[in-house]
Amino acid sequence: MIERISILGTGLLGTSVGLAMRAAGFHGSVTGWNRSPEGAQSALAMGAIDSIAADPLQAALSSQVVLLAMPIYATLDSMEKLAGVLGPDHLVTDVGSTKAQITAAAGHLFNTPERAAFLPGHPMAGKERGGAALGDANLFRGAVWLFTDDPAWQRSPHSLELIKGWREWVAAMGSKILDLAPARHDELVAWVSHLPQFVATALSALLEEEVGDAPELKDVGGRALREMTRLGASPYSMWRDIALTNTEAVQATLLALEQRLAHMRENLRTSELRDEFKQANLFRRE
Amino acid sequence: MIERISILGTGLLGTSVGLAMRAAGFHGSVTGWNRSPEGAQSALAMGAIDSIAADPLQAALSSQVVLLAMPIYATLDSMEKLAGVLGPDHLVTDVGSTKAQITAAAGHLFNTPERAAFLPGHPMAGKERGGAALGDANLFRGAVWLFTDDPAWQRSPHSLELIKGWREWVAAMGSKILDLAPARHDELVAWVSHLPQFVATALSALLEEEVGDAPELKDVGGRALREMTRLGASPYSMWRDIALTNTEAVQATLLALEQRLAHMRENLRTSELRDEFKQANLFRRE
Repeated sequence: MIERISILGTGLLGTSVGLAMRAAGFHGSVTGWNRSPEGAQSALAMGAIDSIAADPLQAALSSQVVLLAMPIYATLDSMEKLAGVLGPDHLVTDVGSTKAQITAAAGHLFNTPERAAFLPGHPMAGKERGGAALGDANLFRGAVWLFTDDPAWQRSPHSLELIKGWREWVAAMGSKILDLAPARHDELVAWVSHLPQFVATALSALLEEEVGDAPELKDVGGRALREMTRLGASPYSMWRDIALTNTEAVQATLLALEQRLAHMRENLRTSELRDEFKQANLFRRE
Repeated sequence: MIERISILGTGLLGTSVGLAMRAAGFHGSVTGWNRSPEGAQSALAMGAIDSIAADPLQAALSSQVVLLAMPIYATLDSMEKLAGVLGPDHLVTDVGSTKAQITAAAGHLFNTPERAAFLPGHPMAGKERGGAALGDANLFRGAVWLFTDDPAWQRSPHSLELIKGWREWVAAMGSKILDLAPARHDELVAWVSHLPQFVATALSALLEEEVGDAPELKDVGGRALREMTRLGASPYSMWRDIALTNTEAVQATLLALEQRLAHMRENLRTSELRDEFKQANLFRRE
């Protein structure tokens, strides 16, 4: 039923969605737009999109489903613009990493019977570096794709069909769908996604100070160190909006870990250390 | 020149050394001993050793090179016992993860022209789970093998030949050798090995409390979370002796990371966060 989609933002995620939908058998049109023309050209050359749009609003108007695949504040800006031009025959969805602000905006700007529908989404997939060139048809395979839909929203019958269709394509790309309330989403991803990233960044930055000037010492850490610092390569540009739109939840997780590390530091020679290892082993039980 | 070795402790590291030496072309005898007979049987069945010794001291006496591949305090105990029976025709070496206490004991108990030589060693390789069954001929390939030899030690010409020979076998197993002073060793591994482990343990233990009762939420974190918590599976038994013999250095690294995380927590909305990401990116530059 979905035959025309546009992908606004052909970075890693947007390009990967284009590739994954093609791999899953989507035969309709995929129009792409990107802030930098190089990213769109790259996505086109890889076959993730079949045409490049000159204007994102025009591309959205001629699509049934509009995927916003850009940073959070850019997504919020685009939502404002799209709400003014789209109607009840359109579905807009996104891939933003925090959902409270985006879902609130979706409630104000979309999701009445006369307006376009907006389905807030968040695929839990990515790489520590971005860009169309790293796009991957298998990026979403086995990943969880979160939605923070609001059951109270009233939408046109047509847009409900588009939502059903989009959820089916998400499953066809290999993802498991999980529906959450937006506040719970932001709290959960603070624990399982944002905290691991910020820890890896802090650990990498600290180690750069301690051993960064001696490459042979970095090698000493081996596989375990490489793994614990791989996310240290993530750029600020990918995480700034997350820090700004999920500040309190991330602060709570960081404080909790600081306290946990302090407790460990004070108990390196007591049986409390054994308890901590046992608790950690539970998290990794198979 | 080395033709008879004994491996005392056929856990993951001891078994892997046996397998790696065979793979590198060692044709001499390899006798193994293990505290639990099952571990020795497993190493024998895998071809890591070619006989099981009933008594570790007897096995050591009939070998040129004795590899102690056991936890740190067990290594210190074995050093006491071996020093009383071995002479200048023997080399003892080890794989212990901290080196200050072991190297000090090596100076007291070994390393005179009339006594056996002891070369303190530490291959930077392992897995988050131990045991002979995980033994791997390629475990040391590309890893750094640290030694904390003391240039002031006077040894017999014969044991110097054995040391030279052992270093050649370490290189033949695929490791890069790095010589360090023992205090510097313990400080360095606190940063690049112990800190990453204790962080992974604390993060895993914390997340077990937060989302451990909901397997579907653990999946949400995806690859990044799995990677940042893989070391959470490491057992206390492998880390207790490290915490006890490198307490101050590990405490210093934990405190430094706590401070770094607090700084990040207080600056999620300032340009300091950008600086921290940039510094982390430097650590992962290629």
